[in-house]
Amino acid sequence: MSSAPDAQALAERIVAAMVERDAFSRWLGIEVLEVAPRRSTCRLTVRDDMVNGFGVTHGGIAFSLADSAFAFACNTNGNVTVSIENAITYPAPIQVNDVLTAVAREDAASRRLGYYSAVVANQRGEVVALFRGTAFRTEREHA
Amino acid sequence: MSSAPDAQALAERIVAAMVERDAFSRWLGIEVLEVAPRRSTCRLTVRDDMVNGFGVTHGGIAFSLADSAFAFACNTNGNVTVSIENAITYPAPIQVNDVLTAVAREDAASRRLGYYSAVVANQRGEVVALFRGTAFRTEREHA
Amino acid sequence: MSSAPDAQALAERIVAAMVERDAFSRWLGIEVLEVAPRRSTCRLTVRDDMVNGFGVTHGGIAFSLADSAFAFACNTNGNVTVSIENAITYPAPIQVNDVLTAVAREDAASRRLGYYSAVVANQRGEVVALFRGTAFRTEREHA
Amino acid sequence: MSSAPDAQALAERIVAAMVERDAFSRWLGIEVLEVAPRRSTCRLTVRDDMVNGFGVTHGGIAFSLADSAFAFACNTNGNVTVSIENAITYPAPIQVNDVLTAVAREDAASRRLGYYSAVVANQRGEVVALFRGTAFRTEREHA
Repeated sequence: MSSAPDAQALAERIVAAMVERDAFSRWLGIEVLEVAPRRSTCRLTVRDDMVNGFGVTHGGIAFSLADSAFAFACNTNGNVTVSIENAITYPAPIQVNDVLTAVAREDAASRRLGYYSAVVANQRGEVVALFRGTAFRTEREHA
Repeated sequence: MSSAPDAQALAERIVAAMVERDAFSRWLGIEVLEVAPRRSTCRLTVRDDMVNGFGVTHGGIAFSLADSAFAFACNTNGNVTVSIENAITYPAPIQVNDVLTAVAREDAASRRLGYYSAVVANQRGEVVALFRGTAFRTEREHA
Repeated sequence: MSSAPDAQALAERIVAAMVERDAFSRWLGIEVLEVAPRRSTCRLTVRDDMVNGFGVTHGGIAFSLADSAFAFACNTNGNVTVSIENAITYPAPIQVNDVLTAVAREDAASRRLGYYSAVVANQRGEVVALFRGTAFRTEREHA
Repeated sequence: MSSAPDAQALAERIVAAMVERDAFSRWLGIEVLEVAPRRSTCRLTVRDDMVNGFGVTHGGIAFSLADSAFAFACNTNGNVTVSIENAITYPAPIQVNDVLTAVAREDAASRRLGYYSAVVANQRGEVVALFRGTAFRTEREHA
């Protein structure tokens, strides 16, 4: 059984290795602000090349930010953990130059499944997306 | 009441105007293969800069492709129509160089809401993502 | 603009009128433990006639409890408010005689839409269902 | 490897055993109209004791019908298969005395997970609910 400092160190090591390979999160400009066991906080700034056919931010941007935060959070348990299912809603529109912060955390877990939510807020603290993810914990440990 | 050829012409005109402004779909390399009233088919090829922390395709890529196909499909009715809610599952992993095709279509509609699904398949016809979207039809007409 | 006590009285009056007519919630044995603006807490005890083909509690029972809690919570704003979309997951199995409590609350809102979640826990405080609901606020006021 | 007639016989045998124990589906008055591998069709008639606080059919009724059809369909593979996650939307209201038919079928599958949808229509063929379910196939075989 890991002690709490070990769990924190493990979480940081796993997420650092994931970020290293995550080319799409890099293109998005995602910064990982905080990592803890079953939790992560990520941020990005919306750019001109992230808009959709209405000139507002493409739904895929908020989704991808939340999905990255979720992936980092759910892998901190030490086993390779993959997304099964995601859902997202959009309580407020997102504009170019908005700074979005996603906080992902575990709401519940069974032996093999983890249930996460992520709240995405803008620089004024307004909720712009509510995301939910279900994760499957494989038997393979992170290297 | 539009005749069918008019509905088809309207659908094409609206989607062409949306594609024109959609910078993120352009970055993704999305091609619109087909547009019809309440329906669209879109395609992209997965690149190296679309992978996540496991070196497989980021969930945001399949989501964004399906979301674009959904947005084009649900706006063909002539009114500005926005996404309320989306859900996605991932029956099979997506690799770099896979060619993904998303077919979005309306499953049901009420006066203000449209219920869409999109199936994303790879070049071998395997289903790699199942997407669902609920759209809100505003009172504003497309220009 | 209502003062806070008025908002509380309005919430209680609307939910009391809804409960009065809600025959299915009555069959389920749902008790409303608490109502407040954009919030409600409801409880039921699982009976023998609520099991599914595996002899454990049918998914529809946790769903219906959460859906009732959500409906009560989202109607407290004073306008007739209807459910657009719901999602539910099941972190732990539910047995006959379990006492389930659902707490529904608003996570975010726009002018016409409310985004709610409900957490369903058993008598030991274990989370047995996570529910999410999107509500559409009509222009019709509660009588 | 089962031949097709064996798969059909297995599907029917498993669903018959599930229906036998399913007390809540019995209360709902659910009839199983058709079973086939990875597919089922179920029907119920809405009664007075199935209404919600608005006097229309409680969301839990359409959900429970679709959930039963989904559970029957996904267990036909021979292994005990449980629901992980469900989502539902309501394109049209459901009235007392409506006769609802749910057709559940598999849209995609991986080794352990099955992705199902169910369409619920009324006696006029109008779609009144769209349901989606993700199922986890355990290693335990049906008796």
